[in-house]
Amino acid sequence: MLVALLPGDGIGPEVIAEAVRVLDAAGVSDLSYETAPVGGAAYKAEGHPLPEATLALARRADALLFGAVGDPDCDRLERRLRPEQAILGLRAALGLFANLRPAKLFPELADASALRPEVASAIDMVIVRELNGDVYFGEKGMRTTPGGLRQGYDVMSYDESEVARIARVGFETARARRGKLTSVDKANVLETSQLWRDVVTEIAAEYPDVALSHLYVDNAAMQLVRNPGQFDVIVTGNLFGDILSDQASMCAGSIGMLPSAALDGAGKGLYEPIHGSAPDIAGQAKANPLATILSAAMMLRYSLGKPDDADRIEAAVAAALAAGARSPDLGGSMTTTEMGDAVIRALR
Amino acid sequence: MLVALLPGDGIGPEVIAEAVRVLDAAGVSDLSYETAPVGGAAYKAEGHPLPEATLALARRADALLFGAVGDPDCDRLERRLRPEQAILGLRAALGLFANLRPAKLFPELADASALRPEVASAIDMVIVRELNGDVYFGEKGMRTTPGGLRQGYDVMSYDESEVARIARVGFETARARRGKLTSVDKANVLETSQLWRDVVTEIAAEYPDVALSHLYVDNAAMQLVRNPGQFDVIVTGNLFGDILSDQASMCAGSIGMLPSAALDGAGKGLYEPIHGSAPDIAGQAKANPLATILSAAMMLRYSLGKPDDADRIEAAVAAALAAGARSPDLGGSMTTTEMGDAVIRALR
Ligand SMILES: CC(C)[C@H](C(=O)O)[C@@H](O)C(=O)O
Ligand SMILES: CC(C)[C@H](C(=O)O)[C@@H](O)C(=O)O
Repeated sequence: MLVALLPGDGIGPEVIAEAVRVLDAAGVSDLSYETAPVGGAAYKAEGHPLPEATLALARRADALLFGAVGDPDCDRLERRLRPEQAILGLRAALGLFANLRPAKLFPELADASALRPEVASAIDMVIVRELNGDVYFGEKGMRTTPGGLRQGYDVMSYDESEVARIARVGFETARARRGKLTSVDKANVLETSQLWRDVVTEIAAEYPDVALSHLYVDNAAMQLVRNPGQFDVIVTGNLFGDILSDQASMCAGSIGMLPSAALDGAGKGLYEPIHGSAPDIAGQAKANPLATILSAAMMLRYSLGKPDDADRIEAAVAAALAAGARSPDLGGSMTTTEMGDAVIRALR
Repeated sequence: MLVALLPGDGIGPEVIAEAVRVLDAAGVSDLSYETAPVGGAAYKAEGHPLPEATLALARRADALLFGAVGDPDCDRLERRLRPEQAILGLRAALGLFANLRPAKLFPELADASALRPEVASAIDMVIVRELNGDVYFGEKGMRTTPGGLRQGYDVMSYDESEVARIARVGFETARARRGKLTSVDKANVLETSQLWRDVVTEIAAEYPDVALSHLYVDNAAMQLVRNPGQFDVIVTGNLFGDILSDQASMCAGSIGMLPSAALDGAGKGLYEPIHGSAPDIAGQAKANPLATILSAAMMLRYSLGKPDDADRIEAAVAAALAAGARSPDLGGSMTTTEMGDAVIRALR
């Protein structure tokens, strides 16, 4: 099976390299790799953040392992040339509508969370974020008001089919876990959210075994601090999911630990650590590769039909932590490669 | 000076009653009150959440002391009749564009935060949220797609004058504090945010003494958990401000403690606790009135030109806490009235 490696910007190449070393060491059978540039790196090399050849590889591949995009050098470019357009473009072109973001504290890292240990250790949730719609992909632009003022605008919207398909992912995910689904919206203000709430409620009839509740997004942001242990699965739109999933992952400890999957509904997916390109530490061997290694494990499980290999890699990450492996974000001083080595040792 | 009392729904009437008792006990000179219904209570009594007479009182008053709106009985009403329309309607009709939400942990309550005490105790920030624009007030509705599907939509937008006036409030607030302003947006995705970022950057030239930085909203939600002590003043739009200010207040301990002001730029303001109507505990004397009492203090300071009275009331709240006053949300068992009594005792 073909895995597209898209290392991207900042620490992306460093963490992808470790994930590939771990996949090799795990002896996962029948994997081949092709690498292509993406993000600011692709813009600098080829004038576009998502070159044609990269997109062609992404289409051809069975799964994508993605590092990170984002480069301060590119902040002043026109929007369509900025690094972020690569990830938005891949999500749209491949129809990757379902973003799964597990947030769970590794017990060894209870001290790394800003939350009290008893609050943080109760965290075990998956955020299911819609990735193909919302204000991300609506009409947008700059215009001039009748009074001659500059005005920026972005249209937020969802239609019922978009809500229904992500709602089903939420219900299925909850069914396979503790059976609790929390849908997050802002239906007291937004019509988009009112439709969201109506459709999620309709779909609930198909899942009588799942307990559904609704929360406003402002309340959800509070509850994620007050008592994050109450959540099993959260399903929400693209914008609210962007905010809440980053918040939740920080509650669960270092952002260097958390993987994610973006799925198309037919088994194909893009897998990436949630931490981003971290230009401030790029090239210094300080990046924690565990989020990317865990993303590779998700890839084995969700796209490549190799759940046993996924289990082994996840167990090796836990064992490496238990054995004391700590990169700087976890309060230690191990380099990126040393962290990879620790996982490889644990695999054996 | 005339204060409009708008108790509203749920625990609103209970907490407003205590705030008025405290204002009386503090012997604030030259205050008169008129009360009017608002929210679900107004809908049930008069068929509209913001009756004409209430709006007329609001226009006539020098300041508004607001309890809370929100009533589960009204969730299925058409949008324009829902309780929330009262607060949205007042913000729009009175041009209350600047929402100030201080978040600070009372040292006595360090144990009430889900954050580690050393993280929580460093919190001392003000969130300045724009209240008259954004996706809250843009065109919105339900429509049918060409394919015959229900679709909800809401237009997000800001023009440069809207951004400039709230940016100035942010810079002025920062100048009067520690001189640090963080502007929060999602400029890597939204054109509305790109305009926001451009205009805030332009206005910064008027405030060379204030250190401005920009954060994406997802990163801001993480930083508010990881290290909230880094923030002095945050300025952001209506939607992001709704989410982040609730998150920040929960970081600072009980939501029962935090006041807010919504200002028009000419001295008039609406003052309300941020906690909402809490229908689950309404009528049980369990509500913590301190957020409303602190809101009344903000009213004395910002709208009624009585900063000394404001200081005295704030000191009395701190003294009551130090003397052990604790409502259920703070881990105690004092009733709403007993909490008011404790503040009144401390005032003497
Ligand atoms: C880089 C950015 C466009 C992206 C998003 O907002 O979706 C990122 O924050 C994420 O969550 O994957
Ligand atoms: C009640 C609701 C409309 C309101 C808002 O979203 O502005 C509330 O959450 C607030 O923050 O004051």
